[in-house]
Amino acid sequence: MAAAVVANGASGDSSKAAFAEIYSRLKEEMLEDPAFEFTDESLQWIDRMLDYNVLGGKCNRGISVIDSFKMLKGTDVLNKEETFLACTLGWCIEWLQAYFLVLDDIMDNSQTRRGQPCWFRVPQVGLIAVNDGIILRNHISRILQRHFKGKLYYVDLIDLFNEVEFKTASGQLLDLITTHEGEKDLTKYNLTVHRRIVQYKTAYYSFYLPVACALLLSGENLDNFGDVKNILVEMGTYFQVQDDYLDCYGDPEFIGKIGTDIEDYKCSWLVVQALERADENQKHILFENYGKPDPECVAKVKDLYKELNLEAVFHEYERESYNKLIADIEAHPNKAVQNVLKSFLHKIYKRQK
Amino acid sequence: MAAAVVANGASGDSSKAAFAEIYSRLKEEMLEDPAFEFTDESLQWIDRMLDYNVLGGKCNRGISVIDSFKMLKGTDVLNKEETFLACTLGWCIEWLQAYFLVLDDIMDNSQTRRGQPCWFRVPQVGLIAVNDGIILRNHISRILQRHFKGKLYYVDLIDLFNEVEFKTASGQLLDLITTHEGEKDLTKYNLTVHRRIVQYKTAYYSFYLPVACALLLSGENLDNFGDVKNILVEMGTYFQVQDDYLDCYGDPEFIGKIGTDIEDYKCSWLVVQALERADENQKHILFENYGKPDPECVAKVKDLYKELNLEAVFHEYERESYNKLIADIEAHPNKAVQNVLKSFLHKIYKRQK
Repeated sequence: MAAAVVANGASGDSSKAAFAEIYSRLKEEMLEDPAFEFTDESLQWIDRMLDYNVLGGKCNRGISVIDSFKMLKGTDVLNKEETFLACTLGWCIEWLQAYFLVLDDIMDNSQTRRGQPCWFRVPQVGLIAVNDGIILRNHISRILQRHFKGKLYYVDLIDLFNEVEFKTASGQLLDLITTHEGEKDLTKYNLTVHRRIVQYKTAYYSFYLPVACALLLSGENLDNFGDVKNILVEMGTYFQVQDDYLDCYGDPEFIGKIGTDIEDYKCSWLVVQALERADENQKHILFENYGKPDPECVAKVKDLYKELNLEAVFHEYERESYNKLIADIEAHPNKAVQNVLKSFLHKIYKRQK
Repeated sequence: MAAAVVANGASGDSSKAAFAEIYSRLKEEMLEDPAFEFTDESLQWIDRMLDYNVLGGKCNRGISVIDSFKMLKGTDVLNKEETFLACTLGWCIEWLQAYFLVLDDIMDNSQTRRGQPCWFRVPQVGLIAVNDGIILRNHISRILQRHFKGKLYYVDLIDLFNEVEFKTASGQLLDLITTHEGEKDLTKYNLTVHRRIVQYKTAYYSFYLPVACALLLSGENLDNFGDVKNILVEMGTYFQVQDDYLDCYGDPEFIGKIGTDIEDYKCSWLVVQALERADENQKHILFENYGKPDPECVAKVKDLYKELNLEAVFHEYERESYNKLIADIEAHPNKAVQNVLKSFLHKIYKRQK
């Protein structure tokens, strides 16, 4: 998630400092887990693997657990235990993210991640990274058991992480079998498929999960927050549409990478919109040129996007999404929940990176 | 686990039939899971992936949940609900096994599994198999939530599967970094390392987990069965030592494969025993020839095993293990538990495949 604006200013900074501190403690606990007799070599391996994969991101998902929890409590000050528990759940989300990224990079045969080689590309790692992914996932269960067993919401927490993980993996499957190399077939791409992939693969764990964690910490029953879930999943979808837009139209200097969605045959919101609007001739251009590394093909696709005025289509979508989200948020009966949702929305609205 | 002898005869057969029936129901439930909006393509994918990977094994782990539960209850007849729950937990173990095998085969770059190409080698699957592994794991949580949420032992069940999975993945890590290609170094192999790999990678999920499931179904608190855990882990270790022995000395016709542990540089019980007993000259032979595909190198290693009389060493180990296990089992205060443990032991003692 873009770090552009932290809605609640100073509070965000103090959350960040508190958050960073907890990592070493959680890592130490994982290295001293009595459920396994570590050797020196395996200790060193896990230590390095965690630093390499859990750290290095912006930690927006993790930190938003603390910020959301503060807003739900209506205070800027948490006591020591509350801070620790909120940070711990935040780190569980960062661990989950690391787990997905390690395995996604293997499946996508990616080169770099967060400015360094993907973990499986590190010499001596290779496909051991698959098992490291599993260990990252297992750590979440170990952390939850150690710090939350006995809490009334322990079962809900486990069920939440399990359900979100299942949704994410199912979204990833859909993405993999729809956009799978070797069977390139643009007729598979449409708005419904795009929405489904984005929603399941990204929105649940990036937007819903942090808030759901904060709600559980506040003693709430998630069954009463179906509307909040829907709003956050909508927001996550909007966020991913921005991502697709920025891949093509963002400033590479600013977003820190050169987009390759067209070359990579991605099921991007842009190509889906283009397919929706194209006449037979234009469809032919897309079918001929989408998903090819040749810069001339890429240029033809981009020309078509221009012809179809997709930039304007995006800005219209952005405006409508925002208005719809604001209306839904303001319809929510709980002011503290409204604050949480608005803070998320303002972090991402009209972001440039 | 070898199907050689089913200790409780007819009961074993009826368990097997009951067990097979439940699979389709569980699969259907996974395909109708409301937590994801399946497309036709993703439904077909999961359907095929489950049949390919969950089925095709001997299901000894799964069926032993039912047999153990019957023995703990001291009856051969379970009511409909008891049968269903025991079978369901049995299938969860089969799902877990499928998950490990799918991912292990990728990491080991294996060719075949259960007489067919490994899942990742099936055309159009490839590394999507990594995500399928995750989905298999997620299914366990989905199944447990659907059928056990609300039971008093639901949390214990989740914690059990999580802990056993963590131990298995940690054992797999140890195996991978110890026996990792590229850094072949026999000095890393010794009895302690061998025991640790085997115990964590195999024994917990193959031997302890089925009995622990049966104990939870019987309303027992696992904290009171630490001794049972130790005995089963010892039995699992003995089972794996047999496996290592049979890889070299078993009848390929009978065990259904030609062993390649020597070529594959495996941390086998045999090479560890050889290292333990070898003089400097003999060690040199091992260092020069172990882990090479050349049949002459393999022959030299086998000659050395003969020289060191490893067959006799194994038979002595087998006898001692058996006696120790029987003594430990008979020291257990609960007769039903004794029956469960003896049934496991007699299924594997002196097995030829």
